[in-house]
Amino acid sequence: MSTAAKPAPVHAPMSQFPIRNGELIIGGVPLTRLAARVGQTPFYAYDRQLLGARVGELREALPDAIDLHYAVKANPMPALVGFMAELVDGLDVASAGELRVALDAGCAPADISFAGPGKRDTELEQAVAAGVLLNVESAGELRRLADISARLGWPARVALRVNPDFELKSSGMKMGGGPKPFGVDAEAAPELLAELGRLGLAFEGFHLFAGSQNLRAEAIVEAQQKSFELALRLADAAPTPARVLNLGGGFGIPYFPGETRLDLAPIGANLAEIAHAAESRMPDATLVIELGRYLVGEAGIYVSRVVDRKVSRGQVFLVCDGGLHHHLSASGNFGQVIRKNYPTAIGNRADALASTVATAVGPLCTPLDLLAERMPLPEAQVGDLVVIFQSGAYGASASPQAFLGHPPVVEVLV
Amino acid sequence: MSTAAKPAPVHAPMSQFPIRNGELIIGGVPLTRLAARVGQTPFYAYDRQLLGARVGELREALPDAIDLHYAVKANPMPALVGFMAELVDGLDVASAGELRVALDAGCAPADISFAGPGKRDTELEQAVAAGVLLNVESAGELRRLADISARLGWPARVALRVNPDFELKSSGMKMGGGPKPFGVDAEAAPELLAELGRLGLAFEGFHLFAGSQNLRAEAIVEAQQKSFELALRLADAAPTPARVLNLGGGFGIPYFPGETRLDLAPIGANLAEIAHAAESRMPDATLVIELGRYLVGEAGIYVSRVVDRKVSRGQVFLVCDGGLHHHLSASGNFGQVIRKNYPTAIGNRADALASTVATAVGPLCTPLDLLAERMPLPEAQVGDLVVIFQSGAYGASASPQAFLGHPPVVEVLV
Repeated sequence: MSTAAKPAPVHAPMSQFPIRNGELIIGGVPLTRLAARVGQTPFYAYDRQLLGARVGELREALPDAIDLHYAVKANPMPALVGFMAELVDGLDVASAGELRVALDAGCAPADISFAGPGKRDTELEQAVAAGVLLNVESAGELRRLADISARLGWPARVALRVNPDFELKSSGMKMGGGPKPFGVDAEAAPELLAELGRLGLAFEGFHLFAGSQNLRAEAIVEAQQKSFELALRLADAAPTPARVLNLGGGFGIPYFPGETRLDLAPIGANLAEIAHAAESRMPDATLVIELGRYLVGEAGIYVSRVVDRKVSRGQVFLVCDGGLHHHLSASGNFGQVIRKNYPTAIGNRADALASTVATAVGPLCTPLDLLAERMPLPEAQVGDLVVIFQSGAYGASASPQAFLGHPPVVEVLV
Repeated sequence: MSTAAKPAPVHAPMSQFPIRNGELIIGGVPLTRLAARVGQTPFYAYDRQLLGARVGELREALPDAIDLHYAVKANPMPALVGFMAELVDGLDVASAGELRVALDAGCAPADISFAGPGKRDTELEQAVAAGVLLNVESAGELRRLADISARLGWPARVALRVNPDFELKSSGMKMGGGPKPFGVDAEAAPELLAELGRLGLAFEGFHLFAGSQNLRAEAIVEAQQKSFELALRLADAAPTPARVLNLGGGFGIPYFPGETRLDLAPIGANLAEIAHAAESRMPDATLVIELGRYLVGEAGIYVSRVVDRKVSRGQVFLVCDGGLHHHLSASGNFGQVIRKNYPTAIGNRADALASTVATAVGPLCTPLDLLAERMPLPEAQVGDLVVIFQSGAYGASASPQAFLGHPPVVEVLV
């Protein structure tokens, strides 16, 4: 037994952004110049080249038979959705608001699907009118949808969202298995499929989503395998052959010390097997993988400026003009049990030695407003730019921007 | 030693809202009628009568010598701030945005103070132009303020925010003691007070804020006593006699099972002693207590409608049209380590027996979107109104309203 102390876990390298003359480069633009172009801090910046490269890596790793969808909820910035719509095979939306963004982005209604556990009648009407695929989440929703479709005179395109009878292991958020508000329990699905046929709705397929933010390839492989087998069983009860099988997503990105990037190779190999089996066992179905965070998360940064540097009882505080109100997740207040730091840099001193331990906070009068806590960072001064990496997903749209009356954040696609 | 099981802790009674014909009454209006008047769910409703009653109780319990301020950050809805401005002696703001709301509400600049650890130059300029009291948080801010005041030619009114050398025990959030981004460490204050004098800024007093959301009167008493003693010590180093002493707030309200309402009597008795001592020891100073949540929190409810009722593997889910995106705190994602339920009711079945255990969730595609988890509630149906109590503070403005593209919440003052 060794008595040597283990080295402290570190963040995955954020080498997706090059460094030139000490500055991070975003979409080819040095950070201080980008800040000047934006005209204010704080801001989010998303790098087109990195978005494209990520889609390219996925296309390379996954079989051609797999369609790649972007889940708009991860980042609904219209320019970014428009850019992604050109790269992927479809968009998944979670509200009528996101539906509008997807349609404005020029995505064909045939390539849009709409999931969400509490769709209101007005949302169902909008989706039916648009002609997008509705992932139905309950018996009640199915009946409301049938009424709406009959009343409007337009056919509803329906997939059944199924709450699987298994869980996605090591998932950041479990969205299937056990009692859940999402989808129809697998064991109740055959009865609902029969009702769907009786109601005369156009059945198109299945949506299974076991969980999200998973960094273990073998867990994702297992969930996809089980999802496929479940869909095959349920297909026997469907009124018509499935034309689409959405196997969900769940691909994670590394946020915290000790986390490493997902290995796509085993996932690609497994999906190739599934695609091969589907050729004979579900021949009419397009196979879909639906990703949000994995496509856009690593391509984005959040940038705020140091307004004050103070030392309180020996601890260095960098007080920034941005914080929790723009980036709730980085503050640790969005699903985290124990707060950990996102990878963080002083973006205009990106190659300087991390010679000091500092706490970066936002401008809010609350101890929750933390960006980075007691983190080794280069010596920073007022005016420097604090960069939070891994901020392309669940950033601006997932934060309480009106909190304490500060100005909203700006988002740019570079 | 008794072996009898302790009864499970329960929520404090929410008897501030009467029940008539099975319906909660808000500002004299039955809930279903109020929902019809608002024209949509979800909404927040704040009860004028309860706001006034709370201020009345405080006036009764606290000595006349204590000024009562409302901290706008708790709820910045303009109509509510306007209503509160008539009832209290001053408003405290945390940003230039809140300053605008306070001025629009008709509050005299003399009665407004501005605190916040990361004030930008533009905010300092706006505050100086408005003529409000600035609670200065660091040496750097003090120097920037002196420059701005000299450049603009208007005097800056300055109080020193002090990071005390003690903590507020049992506080929901500690905002003083130890290393903190808020205020100037007590031991560094004398030097800064001297600098303040040399810079020719108009010194007006001290701001001490030890913590918030405290339900133990004796802890608040102790913090106020220590804050007063600290201010007396620091006053010796001030360039001129203090004209205002803001002793902070920290009065909590009961959110979770087992919590009970704060006992104001010992706080009032202690403040009377402090006020008496201040007559001789700090004769020029107005004593201020600054409260946000305590003034408005219990007067507000969040109301959403059941869109779907489903049973998944034996568990009842009420899927509502509102959730985390409007009420982040109730979802458990705002500073809570372990999620607990806010007091919750079916507002149109308010006197029905809690005969079922149900989980109320919102419409978002995330397991974080919880309003009430496995809670005893009356049997609810689609169309019923789920009410979250204790929602008058840190609700709408503290929530990520754009998340997943659902419509913003409406707020009404009734």
